[in-house]
Amino acid sequence: MKKVLIVLGSESDLPVTENGLKELKAFGIGYSLRISSAHRSPEFLHGIVDEFQAQGGQIFICVAGKSAHLAGVVASMSQKPVLAVPVYSKETAGFDSLLSMCQMPKGIPVGTMGFGNHGFINACLLASQIIGLNDKELSTKLDQQRIDMVEKVKKSDQSNRMDFE
Amino acid sequence: MKKVLIVLGSESDLPVTENGLKELKAFGIGYSLRISSAHRSPEFLHGIVDEFQAQGGQIFICVAGKSAHLAGVVASMSQKPVLAVPVYSKETAGFDSLLSMCQMPKGIPVGTMGFGNHGFINACLLASQIIGLNDKELSTKLDQQRIDMVEKVKKSDQSNRMDFE
Amino acid sequence: MKKVLIVLGSESDLPVTENGLKELKAFGIGYSLRISSAHRSPEFLHGIVDEFQAQGGQIFICVAGKSAHLAGVVASMSQKPVLAVPVYSKETAGFDSLLSMCQMPKGIPVGTMGFGNHGFINACLLASQIIGLNDKELSTKLDQQRIDMVEKVKKSDQSNRMDFE
Amino acid sequence: MKKVLIVLGSESDLPVTENGLKELKAFGIGYSLRISSAHRSPEFLHGIVDEFQAQGGQIFICVAGKSAHLAGVVASMSQKPVLAVPVYSKETAGFDSLLSMCQMPKGIPVGTMGFGNHGFINACLLASQIIGLNDKELSTKLDQQRIDMVEKVKKSDQSNRMDFE
Amino acid sequence: MKKVLIVLGSESDLPVTENGLKELKAFGIGYSLRISSAHRSPEFLHGIVDEFQAQGGQIFICVAGKSAHLAGVVASMSQKPVLAVPVYSKETAGFDSLLSMCQMPKGIPVGTMGFGNHGFINACLLASQIIGLNDKELSTKLDQQRIDMVEKVKKSDQSNRMDFE
Amino acid sequence: MKKVLIVLGSESDLPVTENGLKELKAFGIGYSLRISSAHRSPEFLHGIVDEFQAQGGQIFICVAGKSAHLAGVVASMSQKPVLAVPVYSKETAGFDSLLSMCQMPKGIPVGTMGFGNHGFINACLLASQIIGLNDKELSTKLDQQRIDMVEKVKKSDQSNRMDFE
Amino acid sequence: MKKVLIVLGSESDLPVTENGLKELKAFGIGYSLRISSAHRSPEFLHGIVDEFQAQGGQIFICVAGKSAHLAGVVASMSQKPVLAVPVYSKETAGFDSLLSMCQMPKGIPVGTMGFGNHGFINACLLASQIIGLNDKELSTKLDQQRIDMVEKVKKSDQSNRMDFE
Amino acid sequence: MKKVLIVLGSESDLPVTENGLKELKAFGIGYSLRISSAHRSPEFLHGIVDEFQAQGGQIFICVAGKSAHLAGVVASMSQKPVLAVPVYSKETAGFDSLLSMCQMPKGIPVGTMGFGNHGFINACLLASQIIGLNDKELSTKLDQQRIDMVEKVKKSDQSNRMDFE
Repeated sequence: MKKVLIVLGSESDLPVTENGLKELKAFGIGYSLRISSAHRSPEFLHGIVDEFQAQGGQIFICVAGKSAHLAGVVASMSQKPVLAVPVYSKETAGFDSLLSMCQMPKGIPVGTMGFGNHGFINACLLASQIIGLNDKELSTKLDQQRIDMVEKVKKSDQSNRMDFE
Repeated sequence: MKKVLIVLGSESDLPVTENGLKELKAFGIGYSLRISSAHRSPEFLHGIVDEFQAQGGQIFICVAGKSAHLAGVVASMSQKPVLAVPVYSKETAGFDSLLSMCQMPKGIPVGTMGFGNHGFINACLLASQIIGLNDKELSTKLDQQRIDMVEKVKKSDQSNRMDFE
Repeated sequence: MKKVLIVLGSESDLPVTENGLKELKAFGIGYSLRISSAHRSPEFLHGIVDEFQAQGGQIFICVAGKSAHLAGVVASMSQKPVLAVPVYSKETAGFDSLLSMCQMPKGIPVGTMGFGNHGFINACLLASQIIGLNDKELSTKLDQQRIDMVEKVKKSDQSNRMDFE
Repeated sequence: MKKVLIVLGSESDLPVTENGLKELKAFGIGYSLRISSAHRSPEFLHGIVDEFQAQGGQIFICVAGKSAHLAGVVASMSQKPVLAVPVYSKETAGFDSLLSMCQMPKGIPVGTMGFGNHGFINACLLASQIIGLNDKELSTKLDQQRIDMVEKVKKSDQSNRMDFE
Repeated sequence: MKKVLIVLGSESDLPVTENGLKELKAFGIGYSLRISSAHRSPEFLHGIVDEFQAQGGQIFICVAGKSAHLAGVVASMSQKPVLAVPVYSKETAGFDSLLSMCQMPKGIPVGTMGFGNHGFINACLLASQIIGLNDKELSTKLDQQRIDMVEKVKKSDQSNRMDFE
Repeated sequence: MKKVLIVLGSESDLPVTENGLKELKAFGIGYSLRISSAHRSPEFLHGIVDEFQAQGGQIFICVAGKSAHLAGVVASMSQKPVLAVPVYSKETAGFDSLLSMCQMPKGIPVGTMGFGNHGFINACLLASQIIGLNDKELSTKLDQQRIDMVEKVKKSDQSNRMDFE
Repeated sequence: MKKVLIVLGSESDLPVTENGLKELKAFGIGYSLRISSAHRSPEFLHGIVDEFQAQGGQIFICVAGKSAHLAGVVASMSQKPVLAVPVYSKETAGFDSLLSMCQMPKGIPVGTMGFGNHGFINACLLASQIIGLNDKELSTKLDQQRIDMVEKVKKSDQSNRMDFE
Repeated sequence: MKKVLIVLGSESDLPVTENGLKELKAFGIGYSLRISSAHRSPEFLHGIVDEFQAQGGQIFICVAGKSAHLAGVVASMSQKPVLAVPVYSKETAGFDSLLSMCQMPKGIPVGTMGFGNHGFINACLLASQIIGLNDKELSTKLDQQRIDMVEKVKKSDQSNRMDFE
């Protein structure tokens, strides 16, 4: 079963997803990554959303740039949690996708993450945390990941610390 | 026949339309003003758009604030011209609705006007210019309106000019 | 059991929560609303977070303005989902709290909602959707709410539509 | 007959137009592309606008960067629809041309598109939609283009979709 | 003789000019204040500019809001110095008029001042400095004004200083 | 002895200082509050800075709005720590004073605080922390203040917490 | 005699001046280009300003980036016209230098131009226009330059125009 | 003894520190540079802060990008002065880290410097000024540094000045 549906507004957004997908795999979370546009192929998008829900899907992660309506449109089609990852464009310094995503009108929630690669990793982690609420094993993996993260920071500190007296 | 369909994302946007509607009436252009949300009632919106096109409608004017997806979603449902009027919200100084509207992805055009009342008047005028391309009488009215506008500026200048020597 | 912990950075943020709390009550979701600051009372905050988790809490909603670190700090203390609601301040037009929340570094996810009252309602709805993933009854209520929402839009359209021919 | 007049504020804006012009050609829409500046050659610009209108021209597309007054100045010379395409400059992240175009005063409408190449393609499509209002054949081509667009998205989805279970 | 021509894009900008005009009067500098729009009445504006130059006018001060093309358009009509005063509008926090004025393309200079009342006072002072380059008496008045300004600051300091030990 | 010199660019900035001055008094830190402008009275400002340093002054707090050069200019006159408090103006949403202060060129440091009243309180606290580095008694008071702050948060939590089950 | 004093905040700003200096030379306007910082060398700057005025100098052009106080500080030292050219830095997309320059407090005027190379050319042209107010020969050269500019646009149009029918 | 603790949110911020560290060394100020994250390793960070204070440390310099909570979190752990250096990210043009740092709530002060390398140098200088308040020798070195800085500007002026008459 695929628990997470990742939808990209365009295949040009694919590089953004590489590291986050590894996280999902490491956690053993089934996902499907699809390309569809809220504007260019709204009915195809509707089909993808319905199909995902029908097979028991739980969480959407939408990745899009510019007037990034994808997450909002998916949220209008479903009552499952929708997370949004804005993609930077130099025009407007990325404020176009960020504001298109995070200022949703009341009633149709979208949870917006940071930009691009890092934002997508965090979307995958937040999805994992949501699934982990009812999955003891996953929850334990998430706790372990935090412990590993601290170790990584400590190692980075050890390699790089400088002292001058 | 209603040639222009005005869609508001929420009835709270109604005050924005008052002056522009007068322009349409003065030009004798049939219109329908409807309330529907891209997010809260997508199918109802689709019905409104289809109904409008079926009766021979030509141009859409979409008014919305915040993550203003309305115009983009309407544009994804139709091949008729779509104009968009952003509504100010103090958070982000209005950049949310402006950028949600004007940075549409290639393939699905939306023509964005200025904010609020003035932007809506201009949307009505642009719609009139489009209709006027094939309507001699309307075209003459539009020319007259420009002449009146110049007279109004001249009168304003006459009443307010100050000279100091 | 309280499933949702709402933390406000300051009691001045209380008015933001009124409408969203009604939603949680209507859905029968237990919550606790607490005041604590990431900066002024970090240990007290840690205690609140730990206590909430110990009694089986699931989701955090953090409300804060300006350099709004609250959500990020809570996210660093827990592996449960954290949602963030920025509060507007006229200086910087609200970009301070928005950007402090949504640009979290990889590894520590926060899902950012829109500003203030509307954003908080949506945070409550997203929390409900998350809980609803494993709660059939709640899931049905959420579906009903969407149906009600469409009806409300249709009524608003009926009361306000204007036609001119 | 040339139905669309494209005016560039400077020849450095030429690369922006390449893809959009292909669309116009594909639709069989006659156009003229000219270089003229609202500031450096206002009378020459006026001549170009008048000449275009005299031969039956219908729609203007103005492309400019920085303090992009071109579209507004053309709109002040004509009652035909004017579309505007802002060109990015790194200073101010493109907000200079965008805001110079979209915040036109009431009475002189300009429809602003997105930035650069994509925005220009959309300007060409919006112009085509306007012409298509009274051109059955073109209208059919536009409908076909949307169908092709959906196919393209579906192919992109097919090539790129990933499933992990 | 009127040495300074003040042009307002709209009579709603009049309150901005009150204090600056007093400065010009105090310096004995002849001026004419006119209302005209670059967009609504371009030819009328051209007439005003030509008339001003014909009678020996020297400096333009243009006051406008939103897509504030007035100064740029006047600069395209003349080789006399043009100063620009942006007028605040809440949408975009005033960046619309500011960026429309200050990012002029090379070849057509405009000197942009700060917003509104204060900016207009400074435009009047800069115009006075320009005229003072060839007017000994005025130059002496300007020097005196700076001395008065220092005295005013010192008095303000005397009235408000607080010391705590 | 006055250890802190507060300089305001204009007496209109006085309301910003009320609460911060109370903090300095509570800590028993001598200060002088003066009005002077970097632009309108540069030499008078220089005199104030020199006088303050001559009597053993240690830290500057500069409060200014718009093109807020005051802190930078004071920093160019002294090698004592300079803190800067930006004052909001609606034009540019306060970014004018903020960016004028915080982007100082290398070699002339200025520490920028938040806007207005809250920023000024923090400037007073940071000045107190600096003085406290060599003042045991003050250092103890500062520690006590943090303890009081936590108590205040806890009381606020007690009065406002809500629980729903 | 040098009529124009160009001051750069840092030698790294030199490339910005290349094209503008050619304009001044072509117009036969004497200038001096100096490096000095408002913050790092305020007294040296004062000396340069005084020396320039003593030898009959008329206009200042100040070029600076980041917290660009240079123009404001020069304006506080003189009653001659001061023009300012902001230099882009990627942090804040150039808004730091722009807003530090254009939001000067009332009483100390600065005329802000566009960014960098183009802005500096325009500063040189505006300085030329100011000098040309009392220099018939220069005034004629400026008129000729506009005529040349129109020819250049026409040639660019001729080389690049495209027609499709 | 290490008087200054530099904390980086990530080892990717190391290049920012190179020049500033040279300043501290030149002034003979002991420091420790550590890597730790407010979010990924909050307890490890707490340990570093406590250890630094226990050995007599005085000033913190925190370097971070994006939702840069590091300085605020350190300030919540200590009553020693905290300086903050934002690191640029292209998304949002750096406003994310800047606003996360400078808009701290009242009670927990942070002094924000400019971006990156230059900002870090200034943080080191401000730290030196603070230490210099009670260190005659260092204070003399700081005065000498300003004298050297003036000489450097003068030399740069000498090498680059241009005169045209």
